[in-house]
Amino acid sequence: MSLPEPLEHLTALFAKFPGVGRKSARRMAFYLLRRSPGFTRELADAMKEVRERLHPCPKCGNLTEQEVCEICRDPLRDGAELCVVETVEDLISIEQAGVFQGKYFVLGGRISPLEDEELPEGALERLRSRIDEWQTKEVIIATNPKVEGDLTLFAVMEALANEPVRVTRLSYGLPVGGSIGFADRVTLHAAMESRAEVSRRQGPRA
Amino acid sequence: MSLPEPLEHLTALFAKFPGVGRKSARRMAFYLLRRSPGFTRELADAMKEVRERLHPCPKCGNLTEQEVCEICRDPLRDGAELCVVETVEDLISIEQAGVFQGKYFVLGGRISPLEDEELPEGALERLRSRIDEWQTKEVIIATNPKVEGDLTLFAVMEALANEPVRVTRLSYGLPVGGSIGFADRVTLHAAMESRAEVSRRQGPRA
Repeated sequence: MSLPEPLEHLTALFAKFPGVGRKSARRMAFYLLRRSPGFTRELADAMKEVRERLHPCPKCGNLTEQEVCEICRDPLRDGAELCVVETVEDLISIEQAGVFQGKYFVLGGRISPLEDEELPEGALERLRSRIDEWQTKEVIIATNPKVEGDLTLFAVMEALANEPVRVTRLSYGLPVGGSIGFADRVTLHAAMESRAEVSRRQGPRA
Repeated sequence: MSLPEPLEHLTALFAKFPGVGRKSARRMAFYLLRRSPGFTRELADAMKEVRERLHPCPKCGNLTEQEVCEICRDPLRDGAELCVVETVEDLISIEQAGVFQGKYFVLGGRISPLEDEELPEGALERLRSRIDEWQTKEVIIATNPKVEGDLTLFAVMEALANEPVRVTRLSYGLPVGGSIGFADRVTLHAAMESRAEVSRRQGPRA
């Protein structure tokens, strides 16, 4: 038996979401059937609203309902440290971890030759304008630790070659709380390469 | 930083779906923002349609767009073997595995004292009517292998005590392709209890 057509169609749409497989998509469709029609309406409205009410902050690219976003408006945060991310999702992850107090710049994309993705036009020029405007001292490039993120990192580095700023990137290594047994080869390689001193001795063993 | 309100609202709604955590829900909301407005409209319509076009089959409780469902209409399937499931989701799982050729009966719920769930009113009476109508010889109870499913199984068994039918249930044991190391105690206990003969000898060792 195939699924009834409306259920099949809804399942196929849910399965397009990242991280949602066909089985989860089907469970979601059935969940909707169990809930009241009011829930379906609320969800449909919320989907419309999120598109209509939010727009990118003209300064940093973060999503906002205001003219300029919450972070750019915050008088306690300055752009001396500027964290460059691929997407607003990455910005929110870093922000919710509470590990950074400066300003952000959202590239709005990444470089992927395989998927034919480029940075949005003018992104790097806008980044340089912000560095200038905010008198940035350090740019922390927080692209994702994978091939596309590294290509994006190199492009940002190159664009900043002549800027009077320090350029850094997030460190790569073992995820804290993870285990060596589950770490992949590349992560282990990075963890080994960037190993950190834990005890000091006078010099290497003779 | 908290999420902008419309994004927070949509994330909270997505997170209500079974198996969708807050992080996945946020990814889903961002995915919606990346897609065209047309996708949002299509999804909203599909959610509405699934509710409006589908209704339970009056015979077995399966979802259908027709008067009677595809399985009940199929002249090649009879109700001599009748598989009783808790939900349409379970029916579809069994059906898609292709392991059963008879008819189904969807209880439309399960018994859970903890979550205060009962079988829908009249479900067991309707089951008895179908057994009668379809001249059922064997009722296979395919409730879920957990406490609530077992309580439901007992209720169905009791309701069928005076019916002239053989009553069976799905076997419990190790999931095929799984490993003993990952099996929980209760599953191992069931696998041990229901162990099957693989070689025959004359009698037990003296």
